[in-house]
Amino acid sequence: MSAAERFDISARDGNARRGTLHTARGEVQTPAFMPVGTHASVKACDPKEVAESGAEVLLCNFYHLALRPGIDLIAELGGLHRFMGWSGAILTDSGGYQLVSLGELIELEDSGVTFRSPYDGDAIQVTPQGVVEGQLKLGSDVIMVLDQPVPFGTPPELAELATRRTHLWAGQCRQVDTGDSLLFGIVQGGFDVGLRSRSAEAIAALGFDGVALGGLVMGEPPQVRQRAVDACVRNLPDRLPRYLMGLGTDLDLLDSISRGVDLFDCVLPTRLARTGTALTECGRISLRHSRFRHVPQPLEADCDCPACANFSRAYLRHLYLAGEILAHRMLSLHNLRHLGRLMAAARQAIEESRLQGFTESRRRQIAQGVGR
Amino acid sequence: MSAAERFDISARDGNARRGTLHTARGEVQTPAFMPVGTHASVKACDPKEVAESGAEVLLCNFYHLALRPGIDLIAELGGLHRFMGWSGAILTDSGGYQLVSLGELIELEDSGVTFRSPYDGDAIQVTPQGVVEGQLKLGSDVIMVLDQPVPFGTPPELAELATRRTHLWAGQCRQVDTGDSLLFGIVQGGFDVGLRSRSAEAIAALGFDGVALGGLVMGEPPQVRQRAVDACVRNLPDRLPRYLMGLGTDLDLLDSISRGVDLFDCVLPTRLARTGTALTECGRISLRHSRFRHVPQPLEADCDCPACANFSRAYLRHLYLAGEILAHRMLSLHNLRHLGRLMAAARQAIEESRLQGFTESRRRQIAQGVGR
Repeated sequence: MSAAERFDISARDGNARRGTLHTARGEVQTPAFMPVGTHASVKACDPKEVAESGAEVLLCNFYHLALRPGIDLIAELGGLHRFMGWSGAILTDSGGYQLVSLGELIELEDSGVTFRSPYDGDAIQVTPQGVVEGQLKLGSDVIMVLDQPVPFGTPPELAELATRRTHLWAGQCRQVDTGDSLLFGIVQGGFDVGLRSRSAEAIAALGFDGVALGGLVMGEPPQVRQRAVDACVRNLPDRLPRYLMGLGTDLDLLDSISRGVDLFDCVLPTRLARTGTALTECGRISLRHSRFRHVPQPLEADCDCPACANFSRAYLRHLYLAGEILAHRMLSLHNLRHLGRLMAAARQAIEESRLQGFTESRRRQIAQGVGR
Repeated sequence: MSAAERFDISARDGNARRGTLHTARGEVQTPAFMPVGTHASVKACDPKEVAESGAEVLLCNFYHLALRPGIDLIAELGGLHRFMGWSGAILTDSGGYQLVSLGELIELEDSGVTFRSPYDGDAIQVTPQGVVEGQLKLGSDVIMVLDQPVPFGTPPELAELATRRTHLWAGQCRQVDTGDSLLFGIVQGGFDVGLRSRSAEAIAALGFDGVALGGLVMGEPPQVRQRAVDACVRNLPDRLPRYLMGLGTDLDLLDSISRGVDLFDCVLPTRLARTGTALTECGRISLRHSRFRHVPQPLEADCDCPACANFSRAYLRHLYLAGEILAHRMLSLHNLRHLGRLMAAARQAIEESRLQGFTESRRRQIAQGVGR
């Protein structure tokens, strides 16, 4: 299959696209949100529940799985899908993000990376090709190249170096035959529009099946991020799917969709759940708040998730305060379903050429906080 | 309904009985195991899953719910069943056990008990009648009287005092009209067979709908417990259901069934799950053990629980080591289903007059540990 056959665009609304990504394990309707299953489990949820939230593709972390339980073990047990009981598509990230988030546990050279395990201090050396081959061993449907993001505020010369290395590695990753698995390049370039644009051109030239916008959501102001997104989109082929890594709030997602992004992932829905926070169409609510003590209504009136179908805000608040695991699970399922419904609504709005109106109405709802 | 109409015995095998307990929320087939939902949630499980494990009745703790979120709040929200989304029967315990387990947080007088909240130090004063009325407010289907157990090794004169107080309170509890809710008395008497027998007679004389064997599983040797169980059974009316509080290992359950006990509860299945331990027909296995690292088989070959239907031992071990909540939930569901299947097998064995053979074969399986 050529890259063109792996992503169809069926409707447009401004820069926004309504697409279908074809993977070896089925289609993914875009724009799409990918729940994160760092250790081969979306926190507190089972695979069936994750699918019911509307997710067609999950993100798992090559780096974390390489450390624990190990790539070879998962391969021996039939690959990641079988290991974790998920029959939909899986995108695996490369560990590039960990080059930033793990700091001292990383040694970087042009030839590759040495990760040090935070569990036992063991060192794992990886080359760019090795990272792609490892994801292939897992049976990943969408493989990410190894890249080097930089935090917001990195001096230009260091951002330039990291971007140059990202391009070097991308070229090496591109040499690997990934068969039925899609291979995505990653644009870096820090927060300088010129460097971003050149990075997008360089990655586009390598002929990947899709392209990620990496190194964003790194503490930068929204306008800075938006300019970087636009610089990428302008310099990427229209026919490729675009994936903005690590973005997860409703309005940021809608804004990025309007700029031409198709795929997203974020730990936010499950991480917020752990703190007792639910996403609603009118903004976030924290169940710690005593005003929910007596509330017999569900988290959201028209939501079809298991939490809203079965339980009151008062009960979920009680569970959360009592430290019951069911609270974490129910809030996770609600938050995932919230984003699943948001994506479905965005797809429909694009088909009906009313994404801007939909976004504005959602922005007003959140500003007013009605129903929270 | 008279007590006789609330419990049918359809088959016998030695002292063991195959019965049906009729509650306002449906029938409970006995012998039965009750999962424990201390804070109105069976830890890590949702109500539908608990029902699918074979449980027809849950235990919830009046004491814990009184402290958090409060009995009135639950009543205001439609009662405990609606609050927690469980449509089967609920048995509530009275807080008697906490008189032992909480030690310094308790003040005891003949007129009642002062519990001190471990959360905020607030004091809650309860009378025996108040405890029954509180359980009625929750909408409990099976209400337990307030009692005073004593730990193993308590001097005889103190055991005698606690037993006398238990009888005094039982008489006061019996005065409350519990309508459609069943009211169970509790036998105490420490570990002296004579005092146990007199306590059983005293409780039997009060005309409850069922009787619990309280103050056992308190650190005593099995033989001491078995003698106490026999002393209770000999002195209780045959037509009443008998409930041994707090017992949960396979062989202990089967032994107690053979002595004439019908109902059980224990936190063991969910507590063991938290430590990575699974119950199997061949005994317990701990997923921490490295020998499960590569095992593609489920926890138990012929088990129909969600863990065994979907996941390998290797994956569950990985989840447990990674601290993933899904491990806790899956092990809990497996352990609950294990006990659900054990009870179903025991019921069938009684119907077919082969409980002793079934128990012996299970004892051999565990001794051999085949398949662990």
